[in-house]
Amino acid sequence: MSNKMQGIGASQGIAIAKVFKLEEPKYLIPEENVNDTTAEIAKLEAAMTKASADITRLQEITLEKLGAEKAAIFEAHGQILNDPAMIDDAKAMINNDQNNAAFAIHTVAQKFIAMFSGMDDPYFKERAADIKDVTDRLIKYLLNVPVLDLATINEEVIIVADDLTPSQTAQLDPKFAKGFACDMGGRTSHAAIMARSLEIPAVLGLKTITSQTKHHENIMINGETGVVILNPSDNEIAEWTAARAKFAEQQGELLTFKDKATVSKDGYTKFVLEGNIGSPKDVHGVLDNGGEGIGLFRSEFLYMDNDHFPTEEEQFVAYKEVLENMQGKAVIIRTLDIGGDKTLSYFEFPHEMNPFLGYRAIRLCLDKEDVFRTQLRALLRASVYGHLGIMFPMIATVDEFKAAKAIVLEEKAKLVQEGHKVADDVEIGMMMEIPAAAVIADQFAKYADFFSIGTNDLIQYTMAADRMSQFVSYLYQPYNPSILRLIKSIIDGAHQAGKWVGMCGEMAGEAAAIPLLMGMKLDYFSMSATSILNARRIISKLEVSAMEKLVEQAIMCETNDEVLALVEAATKEALQ
Amino acid sequence: MSNKMQGIGASQGIAIAKVFKLEEPKYLIPEENVNDTTAEIAKLEAAMTKASADITRLQEITLEKLGAEKAAIFEAHGQILNDPAMIDDAKAMINNDQNNAAFAIHTVAQKFIAMFSGMDDPYFKERAADIKDVTDRLIKYLLNVPVLDLATINEEVIIVADDLTPSQTAQLDPKFAKGFACDMGGRTSHAAIMARSLEIPAVLGLKTITSQTKHHENIMINGETGVVILNPSDNEIAEWTAARAKFAEQQGELLTFKDKATVSKDGYTKFVLEGNIGSPKDVHGVLDNGGEGIGLFRSEFLYMDNDHFPTEEEQFVAYKEVLENMQGKAVIIRTLDIGGDKTLSYFEFPHEMNPFLGYRAIRLCLDKEDVFRTQLRALLRASVYGHLGIMFPMIATVDEFKAAKAIVLEEKAKLVQEGHKVADDVEIGMMMEIPAAAVIADQFAKYADFFSIGTNDLIQYTMAADRMSQFVSYLYQPYNPSILRLIKSIIDGAHQAGKWVGMCGEMAGEAAAIPLLMGMKLDYFSMSATSILNARRIISKLEVSAMEKLVEQAIMCETNDEVLALVEAATKEALQ
Repeated sequence: MSNKMQGIGASQGIAIAKVFKLEEPKYLIPEENVNDTTAEIAKLEAAMTKASADITRLQEITLEKLGAEKAAIFEAHGQILNDPAMIDDAKAMINNDQNNAAFAIHTVAQKFIAMFSGMDDPYFKERAADIKDVTDRLIKYLLNVPVLDLATINEEVIIVADDLTPSQTAQLDPKFAKGFACDMGGRTSHAAIMARSLEIPAVLGLKTITSQTKHHENIMINGETGVVILNPSDNEIAEWTAARAKFAEQQGELLTFKDKATVSKDGYTKFVLEGNIGSPKDVHGVLDNGGEGIGLFRSEFLYMDNDHFPTEEEQFVAYKEVLENMQGKAVIIRTLDIGGDKTLSYFEFPHEMNPFLGYRAIRLCLDKEDVFRTQLRALLRASVYGHLGIMFPMIATVDEFKAAKAIVLEEKAKLVQEGHKVADDVEIGMMMEIPAAAVIADQFAKYADFFSIGTNDLIQYTMAADRMSQFVSYLYQPYNPSILRLIKSIIDGAHQAGKWVGMCGEMAGEAAAIPLLMGMKLDYFSMSATSILNARRIISKLEVSAMEKLVEQAIMCETNDEVLALVEAATKEALQ
Repeated sequence: MSNKMQGIGASQGIAIAKVFKLEEPKYLIPEENVNDTTAEIAKLEAAMTKASADITRLQEITLEKLGAEKAAIFEAHGQILNDPAMIDDAKAMINNDQNNAAFAIHTVAQKFIAMFSGMDDPYFKERAADIKDVTDRLIKYLLNVPVLDLATINEEVIIVADDLTPSQTAQLDPKFAKGFACDMGGRTSHAAIMARSLEIPAVLGLKTITSQTKHHENIMINGETGVVILNPSDNEIAEWTAARAKFAEQQGELLTFKDKATVSKDGYTKFVLEGNIGSPKDVHGVLDNGGEGIGLFRSEFLYMDNDHFPTEEEQFVAYKEVLENMQGKAVIIRTLDIGGDKTLSYFEFPHEMNPFLGYRAIRLCLDKEDVFRTQLRALLRASVYGHLGIMFPMIATVDEFKAAKAIVLEEKAKLVQEGHKVADDVEIGMMMEIPAAAVIADQFAKYADFFSIGTNDLIQYTMAADRMSQFVSYLYQPYNPSILRLIKSIIDGAHQAGKWVGMCGEMAGEAAAIPLLMGMKLDYFSMSATSILNARRIISKLEVSAMEKLVEQAIMCETNDEVLALVEAATKEALQ
């Protein structure tokens, strides 16, 4: 009999194949007292050599099978493996405390993993997975535990595992690996990101699938609905096979949107679709998916992936790279958005009872002006290499915006005086993510060149609910009419003053949000690169005039669910 | 030469007198190992007897000099002194750990003080001061440290101290004690509350005044501006004496408003002025100050001042007392607003990163329905003794309000079936303190009988700034145009549906806010009892029609300061 399970749909598509059950060898990491610390360090270095060889090989396989962008992850792994911050700490533990190498590496890695995985940002969660992946490999070599090799799979399978590491996913050949189904994970976990990047379906958070399946049993997964069927009946297989064919047809249609202009069904041509990035290497993904610009470059990675505040020069190089690679297309870089759940190893944040309502982002930058000015100088110097927009996070008052903008203009004047070139078309805008700013967007529009709506924070503050807290996460309601009214207030406020508005929160790429945002005439939609083509497809099928009427109804709804039902009823037929 | 200092104006009025320097004896609390624990417990009991006699005497003096309401504080002190939760813990430390009595009392007291003083509510901060006061007295008796007696002052003085305890302030005779000036404290500290209650000026938070003054030196304090002048010149004395006469004249005028109706200069008679209370004993203060109802009864005291969830009967008695004493005037009782910074000793809250954005108030009540239903039954049973309104705190979505209201109606039906009487005119409303609710107040108005605007939380969430964090408290801006627009949205949303709106946050009693709230036609203003008469005076001097125009301008301002300047310019002449 078939067995139906419900998980979290993490990468869309339907897969039907046999189970490949990936069972990691279990091992304990002993804490030992070593006498010969020199020998122990030699052991560590030998393990590093083996791990390094593996990583190089994985990089080569990936380059060949999946291209440069996906291979870049192993460049990062190589950097982690050779990161002095980690290896030197581990060696110090061996030398000073006579710890064994495996225990030392494990201890140091846990510290970094805890830091990164606590952050509400897919980019940093991915970093935590990378560190775990690299150090697990090292530890296995140190303990003589076999290292699994997935490159040997040579039949169509769906991988069933507790969780998947970056190096495991990289070894998978999409010709054979048709999907993942894991006990752990959610939409933002590493396995989800990789599945979307490999364009294979994934269902995560299934909790007990590893204990409920057997190797080589039949399995079907739907990465959109999160449904998994073990041992499907013939009827179920026939039904899902038809659905899979339909999905493939839609995907084929999506590809046709890559080089098309973004135009609504009734001929509105002003919508621009952009990508959100976390590091310069992500630019290629945006261009490959038909992105028309970068709507959000999170500059945090330069700070968090570091052991000191990055210098002007270090930042300049990164910003210049992004601007050059975007070849004149707009690039919006957000100034340092640190604090809240994002901390730095080399800076002590004050202890606060509610860090999300505390000392962070622009509040910190206006207080620590030297940090802020260094970043602004790097940005302004890079501005001549493309079309730059600078935006400030967490602006609550007009005074804060004016103060931040004045500092930009001061640094620009200084740079010019010092003989640097600075572009004259740099736009200075702000994130709209605090209710106070959204409510009086018309007043901010007198001073800001543009707004970019950060829906994650805007929703959290408007609902007064921390979406990271499981006890109140049900209040994270992007379609609550209050949120829609605030978004409309922001867009209308800007447009009245002749300014433009983007959205760089998760909502901009959501299928249910795009119709509403079209109706509000949002100018720039910035999203994960992989959502861009579908957004262009949705826009092409809908009429702005009809969506304007939809918005009028939606903002008069009472609840999130009522809005979702309304949008579905109004767009279902057109989007089929 | 005169020496000018700036502190926090905590109780209005001007005082000119000589310094009475209150220097508490310094002492250390030793940690000793006692062998004879029986003798140590006898010592503790002897100290308790002495302290108890003191408290009784203070209660008598206060009753005679200041009346029953102010004497009630010493009833609370008597209860603290005999509270088994504290005394039994201390005795257990003596018996089990051989601690000395002074150390045991100190340790136990610190635990309770830390709990209460961390809360953002004047009522609970006051409780912390009470516990410290009582236990300090006990410890002094245990250590043979002299206990100061302020009842001996027999000349006009201004008390200069580090801080003032409840029992010190109660001993002061306002005939001689003309004001306080303290190093510590702010507007919500105990000394401030007592000074306002005694109607004598106070300047707190002066940091160094105890080290800068000498006993019997001349001093002048202005409790409104927070200015203090030590050793004033003759000219300064003449100037301040005139100002003091003017203030006395204004205070005399205020008293004439006690039995007057609340009417604007242009004859608008619908404004109602009410009091906020934290316990049934506060009702008298509201009536004595001409209050026309209770706009907020914080039911938390029943829960926090307890070692178990209060029973239906315990709550019923308290609610009935308030309703009966208000003799048919409206009484709005807020259901349990616990969580955030308010915790209970007998209930474990989940650990959250941002408790202000977490599991609290109605979110907790809808989860722990038994706690909620017990309170609702007590409220509904009490409803027949007056005119009751029930309101839910922290409502974010229409669904939450509907769910909470449905539970009220269920309990009402059950009570009626059980043979209890329940009034038919109970109004069911909600706090408006979350931006999401404020933005779609029109939708909530379909279901709620009334709204009550909680400005403290509304401002915190709208500005995304924890006002308890010193790093971002500058963002607590009641007059930010975004806040004014949200308040207007709430009032307009209710009025369109024929519902009424109150405000029970601190803002309702502020001189700068009242003109704006008049212009928005707020219906009920609920505030500290001592602010009511001045509010009535302000309303009597201003025209609603002019204030409506002021509101139109204020909501188009850019900043908090701009609004304050606008209000001052528009009302200064009329309010002189």
